[in-house]
Amino acid sequence: MLVLGIDPGTAITGYGLVRGDRPGAPTLVECGVIRTHAREPLASRLAEIYDGICQIISEHRPTILSIEDVFYSRNVRTTVVLGHARGVIMLAAQQHGLAIHEYPPAAIKKAVVGNGAATKEQVQFMLTRLLRLKSVPSPSDASDGVAAALTYLLAPRLPTIASLSRPLQPGSQVGR
Amino acid sequence: MLVLGIDPGTAITGYGLVRGDRPGAPTLVECGVIRTHAREPLASRLAEIYDGICQIISEHRPTILSIEDVFYSRNVRTTVVLGHARGVIMLAAQQHGLAIHEYPPAAIKKAVVGNGAATKEQVQFMLTRLLRLKSVPSPSDASDGVAAALTYLLAPRLPTIASLSRPLQPGSQVGR
Repeated sequence: MLVLGIDPGTAITGYGLVRGDRPGAPTLVECGVIRTHAREPLASRLAEIYDGICQIISEHRPTILSIEDVFYSRNVRTTVVLGHARGVIMLAAQQHGLAIHEYPPAAIKKAVVGNGAATKEQVQFMLTRLLRLKSVPSPSDASDGVAAALTYLLAPRLPTIASLSRPLQPGSQVGR
Repeated sequence: MLVLGIDPGTAITGYGLVRGDRPGAPTLVECGVIRTHAREPLASRLAEIYDGICQIISEHRPTILSIEDVFYSRNVRTTVVLGHARGVIMLAAQQHGLAIHEYPPAAIKKAVVGNGAATKEQVQFMLTRLLRLKSVPSPSDASDGVAAALTYLLAPRLPTIASLSRPLQPGSQVGR
């Protein structure tokens, strides 16, 4: 199972591709950022983000999008502009048939560190441990994308309707 | 010149196509709404909106997108979700090469009625007069799309860099 994690942003969108076939042993496949041109108008930057996400999906064929939720607000305008970026990312995932999962920032910290109020440094430390990396993925936006991907693999989830509708074999378990 | 005006929304996106070749005589070409399925997840609704806008653009070939600005906030969550819809609409316009113009709600009222604090009824009354219609475009979301399109044709604009960079002929005027 390959998960595409995204930290959306109009200037820099971070992403991480994490493979999680065996429980407890997720591996980092790739991470990076999509940078847009600051002087370009918003619509042009949205197209850059959309094209970048489509390219990553076409190349790596992830089946899950795990994306940070943005429904908090320090600055309404920033949050609304971020909503535009998030819209085109979700569109790209939907068009390519990915299952989409959204997590609030606190849920990502809770899944990775075990504490919803963890610091950025604690999240980065746990990322390197969980993925057995020699250093923190850089820049930090890429690292945030990796954290979102890892959250999907680590966060407890209820069995989905799809998994429940599969006939159970004796001794088999529901869920992953 | 054919202008596509949009009133964005995740449940109902209104649109209006207004032709404005001669100053002072704009004509309504078509208006309507894109309705999305309320039970579908957001990503699926965004794809419905995106597909709908692409279809309208492909069919009518407008060169301008005029869209209501959403950077005000009664309810932050609603405004942010609206940002997602607006993002995929701007993406569709950008991909089809339309020039994109954004107007705050007060600028639309000001352009159509002459008063930035006009009521919805006043806007609708002026729409029917300016476009010589027998009745108000319905539903009201379609009517709001028409108002956005008309705003581009009526609002005073400074000459654009593109129009200024064209060599001026003796006696020619800058702008439309």
